[in-house]
Amino acid sequence: MFQTFDDHNDPSRGAPHAALLRAELKRLSLDGFLIPRADAHQGEYVPASDCRLEWLTGFSGSAGMAAVLGDEAAIFVDGRYTIQVREQVDMATFPARHLINEPVTDWLAERLKPGQRLGYDAMLHTVSEVRRLRTVCEKAGAELVSLDANPVDAVWEGRPAAPIGAVSIHSDALAGKPSAEKIGEIQNSVTGKGADACVLTQPDSIAWLFNIRGSDVSHTPLPLSFAVVPSTGKPHLFIDGRKLSNAVRDALHDLAEIAEPDGFKAMLKNLGRNGGKVMLDPALAGQGIADAVTSAGGSIIEAQDPVLLPKAIKNSVEIDGARAAHLRDGAAYVRFLCWFDDIAPSGELDEIGAAEKLEQFRRDTGVLKDISFDTISGAGSNGAICHYRVSRKSNLPIPLGRPFLIDSGAQYEDGTTDITRTLAVGEQSAEMKRHFTLVLKGHIAISNARFPQGTTGAQLDTLARIDLWKAGLDFDHGTGHGVGSYLSVHEGPQRIAKTGVVPLKPGMILSNEPGYYPAGEYGIRLENLELVREAEAIDGGERPMLWFETLTLAPFDLRLVDTSLLSPEETAWLNAYHARVLAELAPLLDDRSLSWLEEATTAI
Amino acid sequence: MFQTFDDHNDPSRGAPHAALLRAELKRLSLDGFLIPRADAHQGEYVPASDCRLEWLTGFSGSAGMAAVLGDEAAIFVDGRYTIQVREQVDMATFPARHLINEPVTDWLAERLKPGQRLGYDAMLHTVSEVRRLRTVCEKAGAELVSLDANPVDAVWEGRPAAPIGAVSIHSDALAGKPSAEKIGEIQNSVTGKGADACVLTQPDSIAWLFNIRGSDVSHTPLPLSFAVVPSTGKPHLFIDGRKLSNAVRDALHDLAEIAEPDGFKAMLKNLGRNGGKVMLDPALAGQGIADAVTSAGGSIIEAQDPVLLPKAIKNSVEIDGARAAHLRDGAAYVRFLCWFDDIAPSGELDEIGAAEKLEQFRRDTGVLKDISFDTISGAGSNGAICHYRVSRKSNLPIPLGRPFLIDSGAQYEDGTTDITRTLAVGEQSAEMKRHFTLVLKGHIAISNARFPQGTTGAQLDTLARIDLWKAGLDFDHGTGHGVGSYLSVHEGPQRIAKTGVVPLKPGMILSNEPGYYPAGEYGIRLENLELVREAEAIDGGERPMLWFETLTLAPFDLRLVDTSLLSPEETAWLNAYHARVLAELAPLLDDRSLSWLEEATTAI
Repeated sequence: MFQTFDDHNDPSRGAPHAALLRAELKRLSLDGFLIPRADAHQGEYVPASDCRLEWLTGFSGSAGMAAVLGDEAAIFVDGRYTIQVREQVDMATFPARHLINEPVTDWLAERLKPGQRLGYDAMLHTVSEVRRLRTVCEKAGAELVSLDANPVDAVWEGRPAAPIGAVSIHSDALAGKPSAEKIGEIQNSVTGKGADACVLTQPDSIAWLFNIRGSDVSHTPLPLSFAVVPSTGKPHLFIDGRKLSNAVRDALHDLAEIAEPDGFKAMLKNLGRNGGKVMLDPALAGQGIADAVTSAGGSIIEAQDPVLLPKAIKNSVEIDGARAAHLRDGAAYVRFLCWFDDIAPSGELDEIGAAEKLEQFRRDTGVLKDISFDTISGAGSNGAICHYRVSRKSNLPIPLGRPFLIDSGAQYEDGTTDITRTLAVGEQSAEMKRHFTLVLKGHIAISNARFPQGTTGAQLDTLARIDLWKAGLDFDHGTGHGVGSYLSVHEGPQRIAKTGVVPLKPGMILSNEPGYYPAGEYGIRLENLELVREAEAIDGGERPMLWFETLTLAPFDLRLVDTSLLSPEETAWLNAYHARVLAELAPLLDDRSLSWLEEATTAI
Repeated sequence: MFQTFDDHNDPSRGAPHAALLRAELKRLSLDGFLIPRADAHQGEYVPASDCRLEWLTGFSGSAGMAAVLGDEAAIFVDGRYTIQVREQVDMATFPARHLINEPVTDWLAERLKPGQRLGYDAMLHTVSEVRRLRTVCEKAGAELVSLDANPVDAVWEGRPAAPIGAVSIHSDALAGKPSAEKIGEIQNSVTGKGADACVLTQPDSIAWLFNIRGSDVSHTPLPLSFAVVPSTGKPHLFIDGRKLSNAVRDALHDLAEIAEPDGFKAMLKNLGRNGGKVMLDPALAGQGIADAVTSAGGSIIEAQDPVLLPKAIKNSVEIDGARAAHLRDGAAYVRFLCWFDDIAPSGELDEIGAAEKLEQFRRDTGVLKDISFDTISGAGSNGAICHYRVSRKSNLPIPLGRPFLIDSGAQYEDGTTDITRTLAVGEQSAEMKRHFTLVLKGHIAISNARFPQGTTGAQLDTLARIDLWKAGLDFDHGTGHGVGSYLSVHEGPQRIAKTGVVPLKPGMILSNEPGYYPAGEYGIRLENLELVREAEAIDGGERPMLWFETLTLAPFDLRLVDTSLLSPEETAWLNAYHARVLAELAPLLDDRSLSWLEEATTAI
């Protein structure tokens, strides 16, 4: 199983580990220290060796930070984790604050005293973050002290080794574009910005650029590494050599100079010594990288990671791969839905049982590389927790009479999937159907949209919400995120959300996942992945438009639809989508699943 | 008449005036100079004394800039004015470029040579603008030279005197809040930003703050002036004393120190000499203001004009005033529509005739202070020009068989109105009706929206467009702008547009005016003003929502509606709106207009 269901609740560590860290800080003449969840790559998943925040506090969420001063400490987490943090962390040692509304900068501003020394690990905090911290320290008259070694590591007994997951070549047949060609394009961006070289720190940017995949972190096929791409000549790839087989090393050697990670800073300093202009993304790159360049005499050109946009815009091979992955995944998913309908009404199925079986159906494809994230399997009130992770302790039986929410995805070599369905078990109330249908209307409005070049995700987001708003309801997450091609299931820069300022371009893949979550009752979320495409011209139309081709193939549960709330256009969309699901999946299904699907996709 | 229909096409001035200016630049040892359309207040209307761009080039549009170098010059205008600029300006002397896509900074970057001196009038360019110009000059090795006197003024023969329109007191009964209270609130903002004083340069901010109105520019009751609001103590108002009657002066004297405009810079320098921190809006305040403060030793705190938001959020007296103004304006407008229906089918009415008669019906109210902008009266193909201004030369007869677009508004002491209707004269084609109905659907979608606190205009804008987008159509302007209270008909910071990043707040008034403009054929725009309000809770709703109360009261032309394209919800909205228009206006109408309105608002 790729998914585990263990509990990670050990708040008792908080006090002793804080004491260990404080002793080390004293030794270093520091008055405080910051412990972010991030590693030097600022990714969603962090290897065990870098889970310093979890070692210190017990908190295992995907974002957060702790601050430790001489006699006080705190942990900062966002709205997704307000419940979880109280279960995992000793609130006496690390009182919880809201990462956004009560930020660490405010907390520090109220406590730092003139002359105090606040330490931070220069590789773990981005240039933008350090800018904010510096402002706070300056105002307080305190000193912000950049550290090359992390004090946590000095006192962390039994710290796991850094991962050395094997790297594989992502063939041109899957990637659709040779790495050499990609490197050339990125070098054009570097030249265009007037830089001598660009530093890449995001593992998925590096994986995309060199057409490699890895296995250093959960659920995302990434090798952790750094890269420096000069405006001309071979890039440098800084990666632990133990991750490379001879064959992979040979293949990579044609593209890049391969070096051990400890050579990274030396190269940055070398660039600096030659007066180099080094381009980095201040929202992603650690301050330590900028410092290495500038301390040696070089200068920094701040710009967005030049890989982000080309990576987000899938080429035709990646698009065909995504379609194939979704076809395969759809067939596995329908087998799951058919099985679920058989067993769930007994009342004996629980959240873990559903997640395990879904993973099994995907494994049965024979080509599952991983799940793309821990399945969110939310029965009843657990479904109302948007980022719920089921554990042995939280596991609930799936009740009759309430919607069951399951959000899951797969990593195949040809594509990454992400799908959420909300399923009826037993009779559902009229109110539940109303809520489901309002969410479905939002989903259809996005899926059915046509929009001009230049339209951003922020502009489309409202379409997913307006019917909920009219009913006095809403949901507290974005409508959609970008999705990688056998890479991270969450990738930027595009998103469908109030904050989605990037124009959507043909080739981008986004999720479409409005929801509604009556607290303590149940959750509803309906998610397909959508591919941005150029629309065909229509009669009377004047302007070129874009549209979404839906990649995900699986029926919505019609037993939860209140058809009286759908417009003729919405009903037509639903019937057409279901007809397509049936037509495309039928050849891949066994008789039993097929007859289930025929029933499930009957036109309404 | 408040509106004139004169032509302003005199391109012949371009060459001689450019020669005059170049001679003056030579005298000043300058290699170039910039001539923006703006005056020191950056408002939409500029008094004749400050129409330097028009004197130089002949261009009379509301935004633009010219740049003059020794042997080359250019004029920069936005998409609204691409046709007009070619009619008004000598393209040989001032070739036209696109203000946004081919900005003056690019033009300068390609032409400025090391050591050259580029002059600018320090009061006419905002701090933000000068920042961009400085970057260009630094890159080119040229010098950006700030000027206290404008070289145009030195060579402008017969330059009109600055206006000295009489100032009046906008009574508390109309303003809803005493000026002293407003000043206290703004002083809190100034203190909150850590500033010693705030400079106000926008005439409508100053008019709002001191509860005064004026008559220095067309169609907007503004006195041109500057103000400095200290964090405590009396503000200073810098205004030409000839604008003040003794009574007005006495009333103002209780609130502010009154001084002549030439004392403004001296006060800024004085603030600077005392080490003052002076708050200004870099998007509005001239660089000369910042320079006066900093050259004397003070510092600048950049922040949005603190009046913008409180001014945009109307109080209950202003809201009641807006409702009364719209009721009055609606009755006048229905009289116009009734008259129009009688006369237009003859084919003898033209654009000017319609605009004149509409102004007359508004005058008949007995309380019309001004029109709120030049009526856009667009017959046939002229309707497709979004910002069309009818002149004797462009004036077209209103044809049968094509929609007629008329966009107009009034200034009453209790409120400012702005309404666009598109009217059928004779039989309209199915295609015209389809276009009209698609625009109407967008209008209804905005009007009918409910949305949570924090929602921005950018989020709502898409609702006005999605049905057009689905038909392959769009319009190239925002959906809505803020509207003042007997102030500017265009005010910020709120707007319904892709660029509308300000959350909508109860009390804000916005236009709702989607359109569609098949070039060379006709224009369709449907505009009401909407008031943002807190919505009443509804059954099953959980979250507080906002909604739009429609202020404008006038029927949409049902002869242009293709009812088959409307959803039941849209039809219900239209019928309910029309029933309300009839019920509210009936008591104010003569029999003939009333029976016309009864017919025009018949439920569909």
